Amino acid sequence: MATITDPRAFLRSLYDAAVQRALPARNTAAHLPPPPDTHGPRRGRTLVLGAGKAGGAMAAAVDTLWPAEAPLSGLVVTRYAHVPPAYKFRPGRIEVVEARHPVPDEAGRRAAQRIVELTRGLTEHDLVLCLVSGGGSALLSLPASGLTLEDKQAINQALLHSGAAIDEMNCVRKHLSAIKGGRLAAMCAPARVVTLLISDVPGDAPEVIASGPTVPDATTCADAQAICGRYGIELPAAARAGLESGAFETPKPGDPLFTGHAVHMIATPQQSLEAAAAAARNAGVAAHILSDEMEGESREVGKVHAALARAVARRGEPFAKPCVILSGGETTVTVQSKGAAGQAAGRGGRATEFLLGCAIALQGEPGVHVLAADTDGIDGIEDNAGAIVTPSTLARAQALGLKAADFLDRNDAYNFFQPLGDLVTPGPTFTNVNDFRALLIV
Amino acid sequence: MATITDPRAFLRSLYDAAVQRALPARNTAAHLPPPPDTHGPRRGRTLVLGAGKAGGAMAAAVDTLWPAEAPLSGLVVTRYAHVPPAYKFRPGRIEVVEARHPVPDEAGRRAAQRIVELTRGLTEHDLVLCLVSGGGSALLSLPASGLTLEDKQAINQALLHSGAAIDEMNCVRKHLSAIKGGRLAAMCAPARVVTLLISDVPGDAPEVIASGPTVPDATTCADAQAICGRYGIELPAAARAGLESGAFETPKPGDPLFTGHAVHMIATPQQSLEAAAAAARNAGVAAHILSDEMEGESREVGKVHAALARAVARRGEPFAKPCVILSGGETTVTVQSKGAAGQAAGRGGRATEFLLGCAIALQGEPGVHVLAADTDGIDGIEDNAGAIVTPSTLARAQALGLKAADFLDRNDAYNFFQPLGDLVTPGPTFTNVNDFRALLIV
Repeated sequence: MATITDPRAFLRSLYDAAVQRALPARNTAAHLPPPPDTHGPRRGRTLVLGAGKAGGAMAAAVDTLWPAEAPLSGLVVTRYAHVPPAYKFRPGRIEVVEARHPVPDEAGRRAAQRIVELTRGLTEHDLVLCLVSGGGSALLSLPASGLTLEDKQAINQALLHSGAAIDEMNCVRKHLSAIKGGRLAAMCAPARVVTLLISDVPGDAPEVIASGPTVPDATTCADAQAICGRYGIELPAAARAGLESGAFETPKPGDPLFTGHAVHMIATPQQSLEAAAAAARNAGVAAHILSDEMEGESREVGKVHAALARAVARRGEPFAKPCVILSGGETTVTVQSKGAAGQAAGRGGRATEFLLGCAIALQGEPGVHVLAADTDGIDGIEDNAGAIVTPSTLARAQALGLKAADFLDRNDAYNFFQPLGDLVTPGPTFTNVNDFRALLIV
Repeated sequence: MATITDPRAFLRSLYDAAVQRALPARNTAAHLPPPPDTHGPRRGRTLVLGAGKAGGAMAAAVDTLWPAEAPLSGLVVTRYAHVPPAYKFRPGRIEVVEARHPVPDEAGRRAAQRIVELTRGLTEHDLVLCLVSGGGSALLSLPASGLTLEDKQAINQALLHSGAAIDEMNCVRKHLSAIKGGRLAAMCAPARVVTLLISDVPGDAPEVIASGPTVPDATTCADAQAICGRYGIELPAAARAGLESGAFETPKPGDPLFTGHAVHMIATPQQSLEAAAAAARNAGVAAHILSDEMEGESREVGKVHAALARAVARRGEPFAKPCVILSGGETTVTVQSKGAAGQAAGRGGRATEFLLGCAIALQGEPGVHVLAADTDGIDGIEDNAGAIVTPSTLARAQALGLKAADFLDRNDAYNFFQPLGDLVTPGPTFTNVNDFRALLIV
């Protein structure tokens, strides 16, 4: 059994393993189809389309891997500041446009319109590579015919307040979009479409990631109407007409349109957790993955993880120690105290809030170290990805006059961990498979 | 491997096993010392003192087990409505007084004063049986000399808002009490003191349960002063004087006062979880105890348990299925929407809030059943102990027009589960080892 001499470095190595597993540069090659013929009667070109927070890195990876002699062009939308510098300052064959997320802006709408235009004139010999990652739904927002962006946003707000389940909301959204729910694939016909996906959703369903622009949609206009009726969602006349006439119907599973298409999941939260688990086991430490889809209020999820770590530390259950406990998913932060502009009074994202809740519940439990960090390298809007809790965290904070509970009260976890020197700051990773948490119990 | 034909009945049998393990009637006999001599020069009597939510049931158990010919008398304080009917309506040799919890009242103060008086005149041949359970601290509240109950309550409020840790608050409280922190044992000298405990605190430390009236206190007056200084707690003159002079010092570990004393833990959350685990294993189902001290906002803790259950159901990790996952501890409910009187607008306690958060996150996951119930038989202030979630919970609710999210929004989980016929209603158990949660994944 291994002795971990440097728990911080060990936990950081697990985070690095998780992030590496999610990097397009490392995981795209195996999933790329051969390019279309460059000569002869079946000659074709390759068009790259896509959207999502990892769009820039995915485009860069495809461009690097794609043969120089094969025609390659296209347009991918990503979030502002999400283009890897190497591709941003030395642009390649794929244009990468930046737009606003999570609330769409005009840059995103224009990019979506251009993507629609780029699909015109594709032939059966052409290949479309569609690069889809989390955030793609908002970044690639184009209302169905007759609807405005404002119409869609109003319906979206009504849905969010209706109590409808997430899959019910997605059903309505897909049917009021010109791109989602397989419609982008329909536009690309007769070309073959190969979709590369990075998942940031529970269950990793291709039809859910970025609302599935290139995959079949099993839900119908009638379903969307029923959901709007059930939750009392008012629809503009154009939306009602489109749903009633079936004009807004999405392509269904089994539609010949999808024949020959392929969907490859190049990175998922679970795969990154498994990579971290493998790294731990390689170092001689047992690893247990709790879940790849942990949700809930960050500080409360932190308390539950702390209780589990204490049970392992004190009783060796439900897992024998030493061990690593891993979890993924996407927790939330409810702002407790707001500043002048209605913004959070403090600094910090999901990872540091989780850790502060965890540290307070651990109360310096000996032998327990915890790392939490976002796989995109950005915890909320800060320059850190996350932080590390050690058995001495609370004592070191007290020596500096920092009261953990006060920082939690004002959502200021960043400013708790920063003076301790315990932030994890890898910089932006330009990929995203959500949160990463690792607890080492020795 | 067993097939569970009736998941509801199976989960209920695990709850029953957990409660039975915590019943004083079943777990007291093994821990009772022999009575003092009834004749001769070493002749003595037995005095029963105590406080806590399980006080009535503990007194009834001792009275039943104690030899009829041995002199037995005493006074135990419990919460209003917490005396088992069999003892309440056919009183025995031990008087059981009811008082207010968690805010002390005059009935509690009078009972504490009477307990102090009962300790007068004890000899070295007498035995004191002290019956301590959760809630005893508030039920047995007697300020140190020169302080009023109002002084203590004001200091307590200041501590609660100071950011002090729970062990720091307890240090101050013990030094400002006439009974806590071993002082009750000091009053009983020279009699032998045997303490029977039912734990409802994380870690099961005897000095924490009901503030340890009969066990040594390792903290000092100087510690209490330092804590008040650190958090800026203003003290009345009598409190300052008592702490500075050492007049309020508590008996310390190693004090000869405790020679010959004994402390027996007759029930703990962990023991009840282990009893449930044993019951599951006897039925051929693997059981895993997550933690006996799970804390956090109930609905959020529910989401985390749901994520874990889904990981088991879908991937067989971190545990192979079929299995039972168990957890204990005490979660909290933050009231979201208040009614006219500032009370919660809805009905329901920790258990049903946990379950509603869990059910929404499970989204009808096949093969997952969840029971959560308070071991005292009372979820908050309702007539149920908890409830059960099945894979069909959300669908059955929808068929009745019940929207789960709405009920959660107004803390009305009781009224969600009641029409489904899914409440668990064993009635008051008159014991308490906190929450019990069991997830069956097949």
